[in-house]
Amino acid sequence: MIITLLTDFGTADGYVGEMKGVLYSRAPECRVVDISHDIAAQDIEQGRLTLARYWRRFPVGTVHIVVVDPGVGTGRRAIAVASDGRYLVGPDNGVLSPALLVAGARVVSLPTPPHASATFHGRDVFAPAGALLAAGAPVDSLGPSVDDPIIRRTPEATRLPDGSIAGQVIGVDRFGTLITNLVAPRGGTVEVAGRSVGPLQRTYSDVASGALLALVGSSGLVEIAVRDGSAVRELSAGRGTPVLLRPAHR
Amino acid sequence: MIITLLTDFGTADGYVGEMKGVLYSRAPECRVVDISHDIAAQDIEQGRLTLARYWRRFPVGTVHIVVVDPGVGTGRRAIAVASDGRYLVGPDNGVLSPALLVAGARVVSLPTPPHASATFHGRDVFAPAGALLAAGAPVDSLGPSVDDPIIRRTPEATRLPDGSIAGQVIGVDRFGTLITNLVAPRGGTVEVAGRSVGPLQRTYSDVASGALLALVGSSGLVEIAVRDGSAVRELSAGRGTPVLLRPAHR
Amino acid sequence: MIITLLTDFGTADGYVGEMKGVLYSRAPECRVVDISHDIAAQDIEQGRLTLARYWRRFPVGTVHIVVVDPGVGTGRRAIAVASDGRYLVGPDNGVLSPALLVAGARVVSLPTPPHASATFHGRDVFAPAGALLAAGAPVDSLGPSVDDPIIRRTPEATRLPDGSIAGQVIGVDRFGTLITNLVAPRGGTVEVAGRSVGPLQRTYSDVASGALLALVGSSGLVEIAVRDGSAVRELSAGRGTPVLLRPAHR
Repeated sequence: MIITLLTDFGTADGYVGEMKGVLYSRAPECRVVDISHDIAAQDIEQGRLTLARYWRRFPVGTVHIVVVDPGVGTGRRAIAVASDGRYLVGPDNGVLSPALLVAGARVVSLPTPPHASATFHGRDVFAPAGALLAAGAPVDSLGPSVDDPIIRRTPEATRLPDGSIAGQVIGVDRFGTLITNLVAPRGGTVEVAGRSVGPLQRTYSDVASGALLALVGSSGLVEIAVRDGSAVRELSAGRGTPVLLRPAHR
Repeated sequence: MIITLLTDFGTADGYVGEMKGVLYSRAPECRVVDISHDIAAQDIEQGRLTLARYWRRFPVGTVHIVVVDPGVGTGRRAIAVASDGRYLVGPDNGVLSPALLVAGARVVSLPTPPHASATFHGRDVFAPAGALLAAGAPVDSLGPSVDDPIIRRTPEATRLPDGSIAGQVIGVDRFGTLITNLVAPRGGTVEVAGRSVGPLQRTYSDVASGALLALVGSSGLVEIAVRDGSAVRELSAGRGTPVLLRPAHR
Repeated sequence: MIITLLTDFGTADGYVGEMKGVLYSRAPECRVVDISHDIAAQDIEQGRLTLARYWRRFPVGTVHIVVVDPGVGTGRRAIAVASDGRYLVGPDNGVLSPALLVAGARVVSLPTPPHASATFHGRDVFAPAGALLAAGAPVDSLGPSVDDPIIRRTPEATRLPDGSIAGQVIGVDRFGTLITNLVAPRGGTVEVAGRSVGPLQRTYSDVASGALLALVGSSGLVEIAVRDGSAVRELSAGRGTPVLLRPAHR
């Protein structure tokens, strides 16, 4: 059974090593798959958006463990989720929202074992629960049902009176590409922070090297990039920067 | 059989790729598990402390390969260790100390194959030895016994005449948390470099965002953190910074 | 079956997670092995040199997926290669050259599926092709034969009239070591950018801490390093910096 890991732990401190030791000890037949340990420290929003990309691409039965957990040791719940045939384990802070928003998702609250560290539930709560799920335990056997998990949603774009759509940057990637909340339009021109980026292109090479462009990215959202460069640097933009889509003239 | 890897190689240069190729070629049934390749270059001490966290959490029979090896190509020995049911392979520079300090540990010296590179024993000495161990070779079959491996120890804290305990920072983590050599006290107040951090707390959220705190971390040692921030930056502290624990009034 | 991954994606954005989801969904029995996701963004040359180090060290039958792909979405071909018993998948931009240069290599062009993203062929073209190869599909079944793949070659060193050899730095590693295109000489003295580095040494510890040295590295090429330091910083050198090897007096 596959168990994936997404954390903000980095790897050098050995925290991920401890989690893997727990997983292989308790679910000896599992295959642990690293997604990333480089989520920005305590950045729940980045964790949520990254999880959204991959969780449903794995086979039915996969267990996804997600630990971006600034509230560890507080009253925040730890949860396990069964959604669309996959299982997810993590803190109840919204990071698991992509799976929680699917119809039919079931959520349970995980108890904290008596000797759990107050600061490292990845090792003492989430990895043990993930190992149980990988070994075939039903999610309902892990704890009492929860019907009000915390949900975080991508901010919605709004249609303005003149027909254009006002959105924002929701994330940036390693290539300096700005990812927006504008969903796959059929065309139009894009402005970022008041600066025109021009009409939607199909791919990077539709513009000259160093030029700005907008296109529909691989997750179906409008993205702003600089060919062979960084839109983050070029536009001094980041999460929250306003983006405007003007529909194509018809 | 599981073979874990801890190195200071990074991954981009392909050195870890070469090691994995050797491992999968020589022990085709093994599962190679990355712990980290982001140990600071040649930082034996960080390697040692990271290894201490995870090596015993893996199942009996696991082979741990550790390559933080500034002395590669010199007369420093290469060793294999059998300790508490696990196997370890690495340079004899103290990085394997957590396993060497366990009663009953057996240590052998690994010969250098005739065509080994003078600068990359990870590929030419340690991976081949790890593959042999994973395939079931007894550790004693790999080389002659060693009875004086190099041991590195965490500096010990000292009890002062007034009853307080003087220790130091032994490491820092990705979150900017200072990890000290003060072992799980029952209470007390903490000073770092002469600045009071207050009484031991249970978890981060026991203080306001941005505030300093001391707590007992997940490895049982006193740690100093800033909630939603970095104690490393806040205190300009690092490895070696003095820390004082004053016992609670009784 | 083993499938390795080398990309310039980083891991935090989830692109690698998506690729792994596709691989485990389509080739459920495969073992995905991370080589690196830290190749510098769009640095085909670094990808090529890294691939050269590891691809033949893996067992026959291994599938190597390499995605460093600045031309994604353009007319550049996607290719699969069978070479020396291994399989490789990636863009036709020279990054796969180490395998293409082997006698008997077979190359086919991969079709772009109808609904493929124009910007993420790692997920929509290369991972599906890699899964097919891992499941046993013959390379010739994946697309039409290609007889003119793009080849990138390491620049060759040249012999000067006075018998010395003029080469250059072709890459640098995490330790700040300069890797040159000078192939395993029997001896001689080395100059970098006009500065003497002295005679070839056997290993780092042949010089004092902080001193420059030249040696034959683990891939058989002359390397320039600073013991316990960085030759990149010490010499302000990088890819393309000229290097001269003067033969030993006989």
